Parts: sequence; structure tokens; C-alpha cells
Amino acid sequence: MPDLAISPADIQAAAERLSGVARRTPVLTSRTADERTGARVFFKCENFQRMGAFKFRGAYNALAQFTPEQRRRGVIAFSSGNHAQAIALSARLLGMPSVIVMPQDSPAAKLAATREYQLGQAGSEVVLYDRYTEDREVIGARLAGERGMTLIPPYDHAHVMAGQGTAAAELIEEVGPLDRLLVCVGGGGLISGCAVAAHALSPGIRVVGVEPEAGNDTQLSLARGEIVHIDTPRTIADGAQTQHSGQLTFPVIQRLVERVVTVSDEQLVSSMCFFAERMKMVVEPTGCLGAAALLEGVETARGERVGVILSGGNVDLGRYAGLLAGALR
Amino acid sequence: MPDLAISPADIQAAAERLSGVARRTPVLTSRTADERTGARVFFKCENFQRMGAFKFRGAYNALAQFTPEQRRRGVIAFSSGNHAQAIALSARLLGMPSVIVMPQDSPAAKLAATREYQLGQAGSEVVLYDRYTEDREVIGARLAGERGMTLIPPYDHAHVMAGQGTAAAELIEEVGPLDRLLVCVGGGGLISGCAVAAHALSPGIRVVGVEPEAGNDTQLSLARGEIVHIDTPRTIADGAQTQHSGQLTFPVIQRLVERVVTVSDEQLVSSMCFFAERMKMVVEPTGCLGAAALLEGVETARGERVGVILSGGNVDLGRYAGLLAGALR
Repeated sequence: MPDLAISPADIQAAAERLSGVARRTPVLTSRTADERTGARVFFKCENFQRMGAFKFRGAYNALAQFTPEQRRRGVIAFSSGNHAQAIALSARLLGMPSVIVMPQDSPAAKLAATREYQLGQAGSEVVLYDRYTEDREVIGARLAGERGMTLIPPYDHAHVMAGQGTAAAELIEEVGPLDRLLVCVGGGGLISGCAVAAHALSPGIRVVGVEPEAGNDTQLSLARGEIVHIDTPRTIADGAQTQHSGQLTFPVIQRLVERVVTVSDEQLVSSMCFFAERMKMVVEPTGCLGAAALLEGVETARGERVGVILSGGNVDLGRYAGLLAGALR
Repeated sequence: MPDLAISPADIQAAAERLSGVARRTPVLTSRTADERTGARVFFKCENFQRMGAFKFRGAYNALAQFTPEQRRRGVIAFSSGNHAQAIALSARLLGMPSVIVMPQDSPAAKLAATREYQLGQAGSEVVLYDRYTEDREVIGARLAGERGMTLIPPYDHAHVMAGQGTAAAELIEEVGPLDRLLVCVGGGGLISGCAVAAHALSPGIRVVGVEPEAGNDTQLSLARGEIVHIDTPRTIADGAQTQHSGQLTFPVIQRLVERVVTVSDEQLVSSMCFFAERMKMVVEPTGCLGAAALLEGVETARGERVGVILSGGNVDLGRYAGLLAGALR
């Protein structure tokens, strides 16, 4: 059996790099959630993380390990989502340039947020491309070559995976051993890191992944025993619109994740309303995946101690208001 | 100078009663808030308190001091807001009946929430009245007399005030001394308790109250040196629609609160959006009063360490969605 890309020691090292830089996010509980599920549920609130999502952990852990020469040249990433902001903020904190390749039709708020994180860091910029006529990977590779910048992918990178795993490590350190851990699955960076941490800190734990119904590539991949590619799924969980898991993340998922279940967009909105109404938190659709599986009864865990990673809270306010209002109709 | 209704020792005793019962709510910070205000701002998140607001502290502290005979007979309260739910929940936890007198046109969600807290507690009920033809105080007094129940008012009661003060006590215990503390003002229960706690734990602190522009009765009362009564104000801050401060709360405010400032409804909505977008929290309009004064520049605190009590997060989801959407237009 080949070695996995990351070990518990890598997560421990990441935790040390992130100490005092990433936020140690609160773990919140809800009597209503406990009553509804018959379990004791611990929500790890990465929506309160810096830049609003767990992605900061992996990005910073990767950039903090750059050589001096890499730091001088800077980092490049392509993303229209949380990875973009995570890289831009981490680069600024570490004093290096960042180039973020984003679709030219990205929401203005996301462009502005990314540029805000780049402020005051010479050599940093957002590069726009036309997603219908240009290939972002080609643009990224060209810019990386021309400028000598290091490309950091959003999930398929050992340092990124190890950084994300610190979320589960903090959760279990704070509340003690768990019977089950529910984690959303996009490309698998978060769940692979969390699965390694969870099995090390809470032996016997069952790690369950949750994907949107429309984008169940990892579920299919587990069934087939190889990475399955799908078309970009139509789902409100924009952070899980990945087409396939990674070469590094998938073997970890195969070995350490018990199964992957799916939830519908309606179930995501229902959980989003639960968090707003009962727990007074804004959680983005993707961030609701793990909780929706539990709260909507897709995954049962009666009598268990269950951890749920709420991955982020970055959702355009207008869209958020629309989703809440739509659910009440 | 007459003695005030409560002392720091009363708040300490309340903290002991509430230990393990009330939630020790998190204190959150925001780099954006710090950059915008030039201060170091600590938000005490009572929106994460049980039943969604600080009111639980005062209600439980009052009911926990009932005699066995009072407990057997139970508690009565009139309120259509957070006090109703705080009393109903505290009564259930202490195993006593509660009667809550609410207007018959109260939002269905509030009626349902109050009844949910009363579930399983024999002798508990919601009594509805017509707010246009009946006087709730008369109804309350009649029911209290007939059933021998003890009436607990929403703010003008020493045990209620002492309970609310534990919010500021926890904040200062957690983050250390503060230069300034911003607290919303309705009837004055929260600010009077917090002012007593704050001056005891952080000598020299300036406690500033914040009212809605339309309902500045306490500001007027301070100017005039006596309790001023106003008409029910039109403001989205429904928790601060009080017409006057209390006989017990006002002397504390006079002695320990530096001044009361006001903010507009637009400023409240702007802060509500800030909390949703930047801090991923749902804060009800009344809960935004203290923060709005600081974030909107009504109160300046450059270079200071500032505490802000976010009093609650109970806002009807549809109304919340509408306020967010309205602010974006």
C-alpha cells in the first residue's frame, strides 16, 4: 500500500506554523440540533476563520514553506472562490507578491475582496480571463513560467491538505474524542487533511464526506475505485463544484473516509436557515453540506458524539438574502 | 446619595447562579472593525446566548432566587419579545409554571418559540390579549393575584439587572481592562448591570449607552435629570422601543453611564450587513446599537480598547432577509 501524501506529523507541523496567524475558531453547540438528531453535535466554525473559510489554513501552510527565492518571486493561483482570497491574504502576510487568475465575469465583490487582500503588496495583481475562450490552466502555467512564480493548486498539494487538517485537529483537541466527523467534499483537500488528523486523535472515528447531489464525483470514484471526472455540477454549493478529486487527496479518502453521502440544494438551504435562525450564524451553501446530511437525516448518529466542519461563510449578501427569502415562500 | 439597586457582589452572585446554565458566549474580533475605527474592538456575542439574547441571564437569575412557595406557584411576565422567551425557558429549567401575556397579533414565530420553551411544564401557558382594547398590566396583575404567581418585569428588577451585568463581567474577565464599553439601551436593565460590573472590574472605564434616534428617552432623561416618558418610538430596534427607563435602572445610569448617543435605523441596517458579511453573524437590529455607534463614527475611540455588547440575534428570518436585501438596493 503506497504511503499517503500527508501524515499526522505534517498536520502537527502545520498547526505550529498557523499558531497565532490563523484564528482558533470557536466550536459551537445547539440544543435544537442535539434534540433533532439525538446526537451530541459539535460545530467547528470555520466561517469565523480569517477571510471567512478554512482555505486560509492550507494556503498559509503552503506559502510559509516557500524557499527565500520562491518568496521573492511570489505565488500564483487560479480561483474565483475562497482559495483566491486565502492565497492573496497569506501572500501579503508573508510579504510576497501574488497573482490570482480569475474569470472576468467573477462577482464584483469577489474581485474587490481579492484585490483588497493584495493591497500594499508590490507585484500583486488579479489577472482576468474569458472563461469561454481561454483556458485558465494555460494562462496560469504561462504566467508562472514567465515570472518564475510558484503555482499553488486549491487542494491537490500536500501542504494545503496538511493545513486544512488542522481544523479537525483543533476540534478534537477542544471537545475530546468523537464517534463521527462530517466534512464537505469538493476536491478533497479539507476532508483528506481532516481524516488524517481525526484518525490520529480519535482512533475508531468514522469520517463521512458530504457532496451535493448534483456533484457526487467522489462518491462515484469511491464506488469505482478510481478518480471519476464529471461535468461541472449545477449546485448552489459553489465550493463543491469540482469535477474530480485529486491525485493526492483521493488515496487518502479511499483509505480513511468511510463513505460519501449526498444532499440536495433544498437541504442545503434548509440548513442555512437553521444556522441563521437558531445559531445566528451565516454559513455559505458549501459550508452547510456536512450539517445538512445530519440535520436532514441523510446520516444518522443517534447517541453519538459528532463533529461537523462548517467550512465557510462567504456568500454574497444579496444572494444570501434571496436564498433565505426563497426558503420561506 | 442613595444606594444603587445592585452592587458588584450581586453580579458575582448572579454569575455563580448562571454558571453551567447560561452560555459563556464567545468574544469575537474583526480586523476590518479595528481598521475602520482605529480601536481594538471586542464584541461580546450575546446573540449566541441561550434563546438568542442576553435576557436569559437576568430572567434565570431572578427565578433562581424564588422561595419554594414562589416556585410552586410560578412566574408571570408580559412581553412579546426576548423577555418572554427568557422567562419561559428559565421557568422550565427550574421546574416551575410560567404564564406569558402576549399581544394576540404577535408574530406566529414568537408565539411558537415561547410555547416551545413551555413544553412539558404543567401550568404553563401563553395568554393572549388585544393590545388595542385591553391593558396588559391589568391582565398581568389580575392573573398574578388569582394564581399567586410572581410577576417579573423585563428590566426594572434588581435580580434581572444583576443577571444582565454578568455579560460585561465575562467580557472583561476574558479580554482584560477596557477603555470604553458600548451598550444598547432599552429600559436600562442591560446597561445598568453592565455599568456596575464594568466599573468594578475595569476602573476608569467609560460606559456609553446607545439608543435609536427615534427612541432617545434615556438621553433626554439624563439631560433633564429625571425619567422622561415618550410615545412608543418607531424604529426597527424593537428591543429598544421602551417608553422610559426604570425607577431602579435610571439612578444607576445617572451615576455610572457617561452619556447616551443615538443612531439611525439606516445605521443599524448598515451594521447588520457588516456583521453578516464580515463576521458571519446574525445580529438583530437592537443588538446592533452599540456597534453601529462605533462603526458609523457616532462614537470615536481611536487607540482605545473597546468592548461592545451584541445583545441578541432574534430576528424573524423573512424580515432579516428583507432588511439585508433592502440595504443593497
